[in-house]
Amino acid sequence: VTIADRKGIIVVVQQPTIKKGNNKAIPNQVDFLISQACLKAGISKLHLSAIGVGSCSPFSKRGKHITVICPTLCGGLKYNYLVRPPNRWTEIPLEHKLSGLNPGCKIKIMNDAVVGVVAERLFGSAAGEDNLAYVTWSTGIGTGAYVDGHLLQGKNCNAPHGGHMLMSNEEYATIESLSSGTSIAKSFASGIKGKSKIIATDVVVAYQKGDKKAKKIIINASRAFARGLASIAILLDTQVFIVGGGVMRHKDVLLPLVKKEFYKCFPAMTAGVKITASSLSGFVSDLGALALVMPESWIKEWRKKKPWKKCINRLLIG
Amino acid sequence: VTIADRKGIIVVVQQPTIKKGNNKAIPNQVDFLISQACLKAGISKLHLSAIGVGSCSPFSKRGKHITVICPTLCGGLKYNYLVRPPNRWTEIPLEHKLSGLNPGCKIKIMNDAVVGVVAERLFGSAAGEDNLAYVTWSTGIGTGAYVDGHLLQGKNCNAPHGGHMLMSNEEYATIESLSSGTSIAKSFASGIKGKSKIIATDVVVAYQKGDKKAKKIIINASRAFARGLASIAILLDTQVFIVGGGVMRHKDVLLPLVKKEFYKCFPAMTAGVKITASSLSGFVSDLGALALVMPESWIKEWRKKKPWKKCINRLLIG
Repeated sequence: VTIADRKGIIVVVQQPTIKKGNNKAIPNQVDFLISQACLKAGISKLHLSAIGVGSCSPFSKRGKHITVICPTLCGGLKYNYLVRPPNRWTEIPLEHKLSGLNPGCKIKIMNDAVVGVVAERLFGSAAGEDNLAYVTWSTGIGTGAYVDGHLLQGKNCNAPHGGHMLMSNEEYATIESLSSGTSIAKSFASGIKGKSKIIATDVVVAYQKGDKKAKKIIINASRAFARGLASIAILLDTQVFIVGGGVMRHKDVLLPLVKKEFYKCFPAMTAGVKITASSLSGFVSDLGALALVMPESWIKEWRKKKPWKKCINRLLIG
Repeated sequence: VTIADRKGIIVVVQQPTIKKGNNKAIPNQVDFLISQACLKAGISKLHLSAIGVGSCSPFSKRGKHITVICPTLCGGLKYNYLVRPPNRWTEIPLEHKLSGLNPGCKIKIMNDAVVGVVAERLFGSAAGEDNLAYVTWSTGIGTGAYVDGHLLQGKNCNAPHGGHMLMSNEEYATIESLSSGTSIAKSFASGIKGKSKIIATDVVVAYQKGDKKAKKIIINASRAFARGLASIAILLDTQVFIVGGGVMRHKDVLLPLVKKEFYKCFPAMTAGVKITASSLSGFVSDLGALALVMPESWIKEWRKKKPWKKCINRLLIG
């Protein structure tokens, strides 16, 4: 939870996501973090004029409120996922909880990569670009996109859910299952006893040291990621891709591999497309969530002052 | 070429597309057909107030004019296509030619499936739907889409080029290469001598008669088509798909197969999505091209009178 005013960011608090208890556990945690943040900022919840949320998705609509039906959090949704969380939730009533916080408070909930593209278009290195996509390459893959300057939302605010585009004839082979940090780590760990704590970084390091298995995995993952970007470019006629997320800390290794594969795909639509790393990196989702509800008059000031660069009050609440 | 006024359609003329000569052959043919249509309609080219075009694509921009860089027409573009036309064109200067026709004439060129979705949203069975895609299932696969009521265009007016989304690890396996009418026919003909004149209809008929090879081909093509639609729904969060094109004359056989596969894919985003056959069928592209430039005031009248239903003056110019 980040609290900001016109002048900049006042406080940031964070906690690992709760995955146990009933399906109100996460809404209650968000409420608790908002309270903590308000306390640190020395304001009352009633002073909040708007709340922007970057959340994992998909979403569903329950009456006028958005609920989160993301299978990586909701254990009750039986999809073929890599990680099954320890609960039986089928939906998380996030907006319902937030709407009870403060009667005058405007609330806007979008996917965390969708708020990412909002941040990138307002404050990032492709500011003002009308045909722009933001892609998080992290434990999962998230996407957000503008086409012709229009932010894609769709019937349930789930566009563009690029990580789940189907990439092969196999039932559930998606961009995410073929190239996410989780899948890179899992592929490397498979067949090696006691290696369940491997993360994507270990695989990149092994690749750089010349490990053959790591090489195959990194090249295949980069290829799948690149072909995913190409499918997005083919569907949306995108001009610029901004790539963020934890896996991109290895951008010097990965981006050249991705670009090589990307431009091979259907040159009539991929030629001239720019692929670049996010300059907002770690703060892109917070910034995007704020930008969702930020008054027009703040934006000019924030563009000039870049207050997210001096975000010193980041607090971990135990 | 279809000429219309407020009251309805005056004349339609058509010819098979010319694929030989220099790269102005098609623009010259279009110009010729416009002249012929004007002649039949008893008007001068100078009386045309606007020209809407539904064309195959991708497009490129040459100065302020759109050129067609579609590899199925431009033999000079070396992609891995099923059919290589007998020319060395790298672009077709279509808008340049049309812009010289009549100085006051407004010109708008879009992909033929994109004009299809414009027609479907104005005059079809999903009229007014804000999250709508139109898909032609024909010799190729074309797509057009609205998201949140916004017609997707993209940096070069090539969105959404769904037929070329990548669907497998193989270099060029696209929705089109796996499920188009051309690919259905080609798969059936392969290995059978003297069967080069097989068309998709023959394969559907063989499938209905219990032919095993045909069964495998039809089921695989329907599955690839369905997974393509699912990827589009996942990226655009679509509510309704309208499917048209020649292959859809077998909708009674194919749509049930497509639906069965479609709803298997990522239910969080495909559940509740409607897939239906086009009610505008044969005239959807003409109607969409007209709709691109049609005055607002005509639309109400056309919705009521449905003038495309009594389109009697369709002429084939030899």
